Amino acid sequence: MRRPVHGGNLAWAASLAGCSPDLILDFSASINPLGPPPAALAAIEAHIQYLGAYPDPEYHDLRLSLGQLHQLAPDWILPGNGSAELLTWAGWDLSSLAVTCLVTPAFGDYWRSLLAFKAVVLNWELGIGNWELGQEMLLRLASFNPASAGLLINNPHNPTGRMFSRDEILPYLEQFALVVVDEAFMDFLPPDREQSLISMVQDYPNLVILRSLTKFYSLPGLRLGYAIAHPDRLRSWQTRRDPWPVNTLAAAAGIAAVQDTEFQQQTWNWLEPAKLQLFQGLAQIPGLHPYMGAANFLLVESEQPSPQVQSKLLQQSKILIRDCVSFPELGDRYFRVAVRSEAENQRLIAGLAAIGVNNH
Amino acid sequence: MRRPVHGGNLAWAASLAGCSPDLILDFSASINPLGPPPAALAAIEAHIQYLGAYPDPEYHDLRLSLGQLHQLAPDWILPGNGSAELLTWAGWDLSSLAVTCLVTPAFGDYWRSLLAFKAVVLNWELGIGNWELGQEMLLRLASFNPASAGLLINNPHNPTGRMFSRDEILPYLEQFALVVVDEAFMDFLPPDREQSLISMVQDYPNLVILRSLTKFYSLPGLRLGYAIAHPDRLRSWQTRRDPWPVNTLAAAAGIAAVQDTEFQQQTWNWLEPAKLQLFQGLAQIPGLHPYMGAANFLLVESEQPSPQVQSKLLQQSKILIRDCVSFPELGDRYFRVAVRSEAENQRLIAGLAAIGVNNH
Repeated sequence: MRRPVHGGNLAWAASLAGCSPDLILDFSASINPLGPPPAALAAIEAHIQYLGAYPDPEYHDLRLSLGQLHQLAPDWILPGNGSAELLTWAGWDLSSLAVTCLVTPAFGDYWRSLLAFKAVVLNWELGIGNWELGQEMLLRLASFNPASAGLLINNPHNPTGRMFSRDEILPYLEQFALVVVDEAFMDFLPPDREQSLISMVQDYPNLVILRSLTKFYSLPGLRLGYAIAHPDRLRSWQTRRDPWPVNTLAAAAGIAAVQDTEFQQQTWNWLEPAKLQLFQGLAQIPGLHPYMGAANFLLVESEQPSPQVQSKLLQQSKILIRDCVSFPELGDRYFRVAVRSEAENQRLIAGLAAIGVNNH
Repeated sequence: MRRPVHGGNLAWAASLAGCSPDLILDFSASINPLGPPPAALAAIEAHIQYLGAYPDPEYHDLRLSLGQLHQLAPDWILPGNGSAELLTWAGWDLSSLAVTCLVTPAFGDYWRSLLAFKAVVLNWELGIGNWELGQEMLLRLASFNPASAGLLINNPHNPTGRMFSRDEILPYLEQFALVVVDEAFMDFLPPDREQSLISMVQDYPNLVILRSLTKFYSLPGLRLGYAIAHPDRLRSWQTRRDPWPVNTLAAAAGIAAVQDTEFQQQTWNWLEPAKLQLFQGLAQIPGLHPYMGAANFLLVESEQPSPQVQSKLLQQSKILIRDCVSFPELGDRYFRVAVRSEAENQRLIAGLAAIGVNNH
């Protein structure tokens, strides 16, 4: 079986651990362990009876719900078959520009969407360890017409957990022809701490924000995300893609999920103490150096190569972590773990402590 | 509300009929009235519990099931988010050629997929009334390099119902650089009468076949289709599109649906007598001229403009038919109706007889 390039490939992990996929404790996919929200599952059940009709090609009710969540009119929102589908069309727009700056390390699917359309890509590497956006990229860009350069950035950033403030990104909105911000993890921040650019979208027609229901609502199997951007841009995406990218069940679940304010509050209440517990547990293991992050996962530097740590953990504890070798800038000494319940986090900490990850 | 360009837009129809969408009797979408198969719905219910995990990005089990159906290895099959999603990538391949011949009248989504990628399109018009592929296109093509021309054809053809035999299409496989055959309605033909090109795909790397589970299995809300083509081509499509276009519920339903041989036999048993009853009933209405078709719908020529017939039927009988004005070659005197149960067909016949569709 091929080594997976994304997290969450339980079939591969189970074959290595020699057990059924159900028995794997998955820290590799950064999914909210409290979900899916029961209201979303109930909405799916209730809509099975409507599968004999096409979805509404305008996804009116879903756009209205998402619009209410963000105080935007429905035509500023375009639902998609996971934010990955919308990334395809963002990648198309970016590749029409002379060059696209991609903040790295970057999720492999960003490369897919850019290379599919033959984009010219410049890596804008975060500083190792401090995860800062250096300014030398802006100097390199001077050889291009800045008005024909694009920027693709993930905020909070995966896998480092770094969150860029609105004020940090704002200057780039002024400089770049198109700025695509993947905010797949932003909803893990409570309203008083999030740094989403959604409130700025009406001022910047060159801004595209991608959001996902996959991680926060624990629905990776359902495929539902949305883009927020100027209605003209979203209409042009609609003329390219197929008419019904979101199925009836996903649309119904999405409406129910975003209206579930109790689930949202529970998630915010769970995450901060659980993340702190996981961080502190990892920090106490000789050979590991965790980085505190803004989202629901932690990047961890390891003295031993992370694929080796991953294999041992699978074989000895049936626990799956995400090695970061698909992020070449990081080399082979980093892995990423999701924050789960305190009991599960404890299992991970004990499992890592048991295998010994330091070189002494 | 905008006039729909596809069949099956019940929200639009309900607003015109002044009733709830549930009360519309829908002859506009050519969907099997016997479905969805209960086994498919049960598979959806059973897989809701797995939505917290990503779908298998290889869709191994689904490809295996579809492969068994067609006696093909799994890597000759690529599932998609409805065949419309796969049409996007077929349109991309076609638009890399100097010119694409599109057999018209053609489903509007063919245009979307070709124009999205700036294909050069030549209309290859079927003869009005006999629905034959004339040979003059081959003469026009002489001005192009035939090895750089593509062909996109629908078989059985929508909206005429015309089925092209394997022998009719075979010469084009020899002449064109790429032949894309949309067989969305082919499964309505029983095994001894179908004319699918699937059995030829291993001999022609320039052949792509698109299939859908939407129509035969009555699952338009689920979004599931698949392409059959050389594994190299399908792998190249996978590098362009997002990693998980089919959600977990659709994948599970697809496996159950194609294994339901009882449902398949029931459908074949229902269709022929019901189609004959509908054809004969329509033929007896003054002003209407139905064409017998190979699939589960009939094209009907009408003395009165079809949008007018459509509106009257909605208002007087809450029955929705598909006017064919989105097929410009047909003008405004054609409409299409699905074959439904004999009782429902009788309601349509009575409704059409009641409004009077002849000009005398």
